[in-house]
Amino acid sequence: MIPRYSRPEMVAIWSPETKFRIWYEIEAHACDAQANLGVIPKENAEAVWKAKDVTFDIDRIDEIERETKHDVIAFLTHLAEHVGSDEARFVHQGMTSSDVLDTCFNVQLVRASDILIKDLEGLLAALKKRAYEHKDTVRIGRSHGIHAEPTTMGLTFARFYAEMDRNLSRMRDARAEIATGAISGAVGTFANIDPAVEEHVCDQMGLVPEPISTQVIPRDRHAAFFATLGVIASSIENVAIEIRHMQRTEVLEAAEFFSMGQKGSSAMPHKKNPVLTENLTGLARLVRMAVIPAMENVALWHERDISHSSVERNIGPDTTITLDFALHRLTGVIDKLLVYPQNMLDNMNKFPGLVMSQRVLLALTQAGVSREDAYRLVQRNAMKVWDHRTDFREELLADEEVRAALSEEEINEKFDLGYHTKHVDTIFERVFGDPT
Amino acid sequence: MIPRYSRPEMVAIWSPETKFRIWYEIEAHACDAQANLGVIPKENAEAVWKAKDVTFDIDRIDEIERETKHDVIAFLTHLAEHVGSDEARFVHQGMTSSDVLDTCFNVQLVRASDILIKDLEGLLAALKKRAYEHKDTVRIGRSHGIHAEPTTMGLTFARFYAEMDRNLSRMRDARAEIATGAISGAVGTFANIDPAVEEHVCDQMGLVPEPISTQVIPRDRHAAFFATLGVIASSIENVAIEIRHMQRTEVLEAAEFFSMGQKGSSAMPHKKNPVLTENLTGLARLVRMAVIPAMENVALWHERDISHSSVERNIGPDTTITLDFALHRLTGVIDKLLVYPQNMLDNMNKFPGLVMSQRVLLALTQAGVSREDAYRLVQRNAMKVWDHRTDFREELLADEEVRAALSEEEINEKFDLGYHTKHVDTIFERVFGDPT
Amino acid sequence: MIPRYSRPEMVAIWSPETKFRIWYEIEAHACDAQANLGVIPKENAEAVWKAKDVTFDIDRIDEIERETKHDVIAFLTHLAEHVGSDEARFVHQGMTSSDVLDTCFNVQLVRASDILIKDLEGLLAALKKRAYEHKDTVRIGRSHGIHAEPTTMGLTFARFYAEMDRNLSRMRDARAEIATGAISGAVGTFANIDPAVEEHVCDQMGLVPEPISTQVIPRDRHAAFFATLGVIASSIENVAIEIRHMQRTEVLEAAEFFSMGQKGSSAMPHKKNPVLTENLTGLARLVRMAVIPAMENVALWHERDISHSSVERNIGPDTTITLDFALHRLTGVIDKLLVYPQNMLDNMNKFPGLVMSQRVLLALTQAGVSREDAYRLVQRNAMKVWDHRTDFREELLADEEVRAALSEEEINEKFDLGYHTKHVDTIFERVFGDPT
Amino acid sequence: MIPRYSRPEMVAIWSPETKFRIWYEIEAHACDAQANLGVIPKENAEAVWKAKDVTFDIDRIDEIERETKHDVIAFLTHLAEHVGSDEARFVHQGMTSSDVLDTCFNVQLVRASDILIKDLEGLLAALKKRAYEHKDTVRIGRSHGIHAEPTTMGLTFARFYAEMDRNLSRMRDARAEIATGAISGAVGTFANIDPAVEEHVCDQMGLVPEPISTQVIPRDRHAAFFATLGVIASSIENVAIEIRHMQRTEVLEAAEFFSMGQKGSSAMPHKKNPVLTENLTGLARLVRMAVIPAMENVALWHERDISHSSVERNIGPDTTITLDFALHRLTGVIDKLLVYPQNMLDNMNKFPGLVMSQRVLLALTQAGVSREDAYRLVQRNAMKVWDHRTDFREELLADEEVRAALSEEEINEKFDLGYHTKHVDTIFERVFGDPT
Repeated sequence: MIPRYSRPEMVAIWSPETKFRIWYEIEAHACDAQANLGVIPKENAEAVWKAKDVTFDIDRIDEIERETKHDVIAFLTHLAEHVGSDEARFVHQGMTSSDVLDTCFNVQLVRASDILIKDLEGLLAALKKRAYEHKDTVRIGRSHGIHAEPTTMGLTFARFYAEMDRNLSRMRDARAEIATGAISGAVGTFANIDPAVEEHVCDQMGLVPEPISTQVIPRDRHAAFFATLGVIASSIENVAIEIRHMQRTEVLEAAEFFSMGQKGSSAMPHKKNPVLTENLTGLARLVRMAVIPAMENVALWHERDISHSSVERNIGPDTTITLDFALHRLTGVIDKLLVYPQNMLDNMNKFPGLVMSQRVLLALTQAGVSREDAYRLVQRNAMKVWDHRTDFREELLADEEVRAALSEEEINEKFDLGYHTKHVDTIFERVFGDPT
Repeated sequence: MIPRYSRPEMVAIWSPETKFRIWYEIEAHACDAQANLGVIPKENAEAVWKAKDVTFDIDRIDEIERETKHDVIAFLTHLAEHVGSDEARFVHQGMTSSDVLDTCFNVQLVRASDILIKDLEGLLAALKKRAYEHKDTVRIGRSHGIHAEPTTMGLTFARFYAEMDRNLSRMRDARAEIATGAISGAVGTFANIDPAVEEHVCDQMGLVPEPISTQVIPRDRHAAFFATLGVIASSIENVAIEIRHMQRTEVLEAAEFFSMGQKGSSAMPHKKNPVLTENLTGLARLVRMAVIPAMENVALWHERDISHSSVERNIGPDTTITLDFALHRLTGVIDKLLVYPQNMLDNMNKFPGLVMSQRVLLALTQAGVSREDAYRLVQRNAMKVWDHRTDFREELLADEEVRAALSEEEINEKFDLGYHTKHVDTIFERVFGDPT
Repeated sequence: MIPRYSRPEMVAIWSPETKFRIWYEIEAHACDAQANLGVIPKENAEAVWKAKDVTFDIDRIDEIERETKHDVIAFLTHLAEHVGSDEARFVHQGMTSSDVLDTCFNVQLVRASDILIKDLEGLLAALKKRAYEHKDTVRIGRSHGIHAEPTTMGLTFARFYAEMDRNLSRMRDARAEIATGAISGAVGTFANIDPAVEEHVCDQMGLVPEPISTQVIPRDRHAAFFATLGVIASSIENVAIEIRHMQRTEVLEAAEFFSMGQKGSSAMPHKKNPVLTENLTGLARLVRMAVIPAMENVALWHERDISHSSVERNIGPDTTITLDFALHRLTGVIDKLLVYPQNMLDNMNKFPGLVMSQRVLLALTQAGVSREDAYRLVQRNAMKVWDHRTDFREELLADEEVRAALSEEEINEKFDLGYHTKHVDTIFERVFGDPT
Repeated sequence: MIPRYSRPEMVAIWSPETKFRIWYEIEAHACDAQANLGVIPKENAEAVWKAKDVTFDIDRIDEIERETKHDVIAFLTHLAEHVGSDEARFVHQGMTSSDVLDTCFNVQLVRASDILIKDLEGLLAALKKRAYEHKDTVRIGRSHGIHAEPTTMGLTFARFYAEMDRNLSRMRDARAEIATGAISGAVGTFANIDPAVEEHVCDQMGLVPEPISTQVIPRDRHAAFFATLGVIASSIENVAIEIRHMQRTEVLEAAEFFSMGQKGSSAMPHKKNPVLTENLTGLARLVRMAVIPAMENVALWHERDISHSSVERNIGPDTTITLDFALHRLTGVIDKLLVYPQNMLDNMNKFPGLVMSQRVLLALTQAGVSREDAYRLVQRNAMKVWDHRTDFREELLADEEVRAALSEEEINEKFDLGYHTKHVDTIFERVFGDPT
């Protein structure tokens, strides 16, 4: 994660300030619960809230950590400097560092998820708008990069919509995966702290208690979470590649918006490059690369070790910040994408009529020609069009073997574009619940 | 995937025989639907079912493919050899190869999922049985590999149960992700085939229609599927590592069952090695390594390309076969795991009483000592135990500063094991819904 | 690895027959060395060679392994069935299974490397031939998929040559990484076997002794080996992507050879798809996915564990077989690639003259215009060509501000293609050591 | 990368200040070369050096980039603000942004490599010192985590030394991989810039010219570079895991140095955790996760795209900073590692004499017992020791079948520790070139 690819709202979630604030809230809520249980005096619990409006001094905490080599102890020592050493002496009682660290990490991931969910909703809105706008904009469908049969630009946006809608659903599941907290004490037995404390803290922090936590919250949850981010990133790459292809000089069916004053190349003033979607291709790799370490983090030794910690300190912020940025960037690209319908038609007719070959094949079969013969007849005429850019319809009309099966009218009828778009409404209804 | 790590039921799903059988069913059901729509003659649809009991000749299909370089065409040509070239001429009408290939692949993944779900259920049963069996078997909990505080072996099994239960739920979601089919024709527009055909075929094959398929079923589904397998594999590694640790010579709290006639080492006859769980550690890596390629597969060019195909031909069988084998192997390991309760007690007392340090710390704090002083007092006595293996309780009793805060009786009371296991029932209720 | 993507010579290296043959040779050579040292009787060493021409019975070995659950012991038991139980009793003396397994694995990797080196040499020859053939075939260079400036097809082949030549060098280094053997006994101390045995066996098997082996050959070597295969696979993808782009319908500057009888699509007879290079894209992912598990294999517990074993049983054959197949396939693609020089010229002139924008920019600067103004002037005219497909040269000639700096002759001179190819010989000399 | 796991010298290489400084030097040296060729006026080349001592204003450059959306153009505009717009008008002539960016990136990687090489040399020195210190410190060798046969702590350090020495050699190769520069202009044809400029700039920047660069320096080089960092990180994990195992409470053969004032746990004052090596385990994953994206970066479209750029902006600094930190941390751990020889002996004797089983096996075979019978005899007595912790030597002496083959003296002689360490000098000579 670097500032270049970051947005402030997500960055703020991962600041030391936010982290210590969450630690503080966890500790303070825990004190309340302990006081309610009669484990610690009420006045000590109340005293902790004296620090409610304090902005903790990060340099001071770092200074203490350099001595203790333990971040939670450093924070607690600093907290006591605010609350009073005597009043603070029941803070953290019965808890272990993981109770604070793991619960805090999940709070941060939940907040990050909320932003990502909003990002996806914004992207869906942009895709839907463009889908309806170009529902009937015909262009050639391609398989293997080769012209296949006509489709519409609206269907392209619609398939991205459907894919991102699945991602929204996956993201909500991923949020649920990590919306748990644990205040279960050393090795997770609740020996030194009543389960009621966990319930209260989780309730206050918007989490549910982890059913069994053995000191750490189990990392299969986080593996599933980061895997979901990896899937979403891969979908971003999918959309990005389509746009990069469309913007190629030879294709030019769409282009990223190019602002006034923008320069495409330091050397070649004629250039307009799809730099945003190329960038998204790379960002997708960055999000994806966290998936395997997150899975390697699952196997901790016994009740816990901290091999996962340095990994999560990095991939927690890095992936959520990068994915947030990427989703936002993609939404802008979709929103402002320049679409060139005339170029779409021109491209489709590069080899005139060729893309209708299947219809002719089917018509021949329907007319009684065997599938093998029909294939041979169509391929024979198609190859002429490939080689000499003649008109496929005219080649067919001139082929006696074809004409033995199909009349001129029957052949001509096969070159109607409407044939290919007749089910667009059906598909839109499936995707958006509404055909028009 | 190699025979050594394979079970026949899962291997059968991926055999050429099964694949061609599924292709056949898709084509035959599609003909039925086409005939119902009046697109092709009923007798041609019926004729296809003549091959219902045929075992297709794989060598013959391979031979045809060597000429056509196209596997679906090779199969259709061979099918016509059974059905009759004339009767077969409407087979595959309006469809494209992807309709057959993608729908077949998902049928195979659904069947594989069903086996994996059964595997997970079996593993859960074994874990539950062992959890209740050792609910009260006390052993030392460890963090960082270092003795922390007492816990029970039952809690260890229970946490694996909870983790695998989450995996069961993830696996069911993953099954739903890929339980879709597509019969939408070239570039997915239904230009040449009515959506009703797709509905009929999916219904017959146990799938739901893919809302928008653009020739291929979108690969974000498969990325999510394989990512789930990767998470499950990581959980297997998590359990395996715990057992490997328990079987270490110095720990020896549990061991894989060692059968008569088994040889641990060709050179050292005294060895009993945790070879099954070491093996599972490696198998987990094999399943996990498919996650990134599955994500790289998401970004296809335009409506489709086939860069994903060679990847899936490998990881489809490899990951499901390996994971099935691993789950089954792990179930056996859990089921027959030798547990040594006496060794657990012996290990816990290696540094006598030391694992109770936190209780003493809390007691000192409760008695009015500041947290910092209490920590210092406890650490001072703990270090003596580390260095000289003396008894922690006796050190405390002999420490005047400690005794100024705590009486002999109060100190003695802190060394009661029951204190640490008092919430085991609570946790079992959370995990299994039943405390006993 | 599946038969579809395998070649027999590489597959043979990984057959059980080959493996047992190598095990046999290691054991027999070790006996010779032991006899020379006087540790075992000469006649027993000689007796082992009685099995020299035996093809070992794999089913029988498997049967024994099912009882002993130890593959090396199973083999030794079977070997004794050939050699005679009494004569065989010194076989494997002082050795441990890893001595056989690890040394054998490295022998297999060395042999696989030799094939891969030959593959790379074949690919280099094909690339060189095509590079010289198209040294002067002008086509547009593209950055970001957008037309940039002219280059030649020969330079494209030359850059692939240079990249694959680096890969050849890396492959030779990788071969050296794993060309070590170890016969050091349990935990690698040579307690039970003299280092002279290791020297003799390694010498006979074409290896060098591992300096310090602690029972296993250290896996950082294998990590480096598989990482190298991953780099080579990525280069294959690089070439494949270029060809896939060139074959796009809109570009069509090159195409994979399309044989008689081949069918591009079951539905659309007009299709010629770049299926081989798409396939190579997927195969690259398969090779690459082994890199991380190979790195995870490095950290073994203490002197050894066998978590790496199941991984290597798979990735050893899978990656070498797949990479061999891919290199061979790519060589065929390059060798027979259809190149369309006329289409290259047509594409370059899609926006007439536009690709010369930099030269005009430089000329304006040389003529005293500030860099910023020059950029603005050129971009202004370039945008007209983008928007209306007019001729860039004519636009410039008509732009008074441009003409204030450059004469008609000076402008015309900037549109000479030879300007862009004047250093092709220099580059060829750098790459091939020979300009022509 | 986060400050917590960073060292300033490496961080400085990746600062914007350093980057712009390198850009400046590349541009200034290029101007010199251009002036020598007579392409631009000498006074303009000299004028550029006016900015020699300028610290570039990063905020200003960012401000310009926000308008131009092009970082190199933004820098050049700012440079002109220092040098004078007129004097600066030949800066960057004939060059493209990639010439600056790619050459700069490689300069940074080379400098990073130099630090990493120094780190490895420091680690090797520490390992060597500890190896000789504990050359004869006997401890049990373990395979599968199970006691095998005696070895020495010095051999453990020696094998890490040998592995890191290979890594040093790999790191030097990796440095050579990326020590190339390119000043070849748009699409790399040198159309607008003479190859002599490239030679001069590379020479001044400590690089060699890339033989063929097609605008970008080919990314197979970087893939190989980052793969090497991944291998080194995996070796760090290998060492870290060994130390974590040794520090386990039950093993306690070594421990990380624990400073005064350090706190192992916020809850349990008795804890001393191997937190540094656990941390290294996680850092290894972070370095390793960059390998696959670096390989995905190899396949750029045509002459170039910038999908690799966002990846490299992250993994360039992240991996080198993390690896530098990890190597430095590991060196400290090794240097100060507490080693407990007495615990090593105690552990070895946990099952008295058992670890000598192989010698007895060999002795029985030498005495004429068949291998199978010998194995059975030894295993029979070993199992008694496992089950009842009796003394293996005494069990053997009491076993009549054993005694039929071996005398009491012969049996006793097999329990001599010196037998296992007799080749330590040989191995040290192999590793260090010097036995003592």
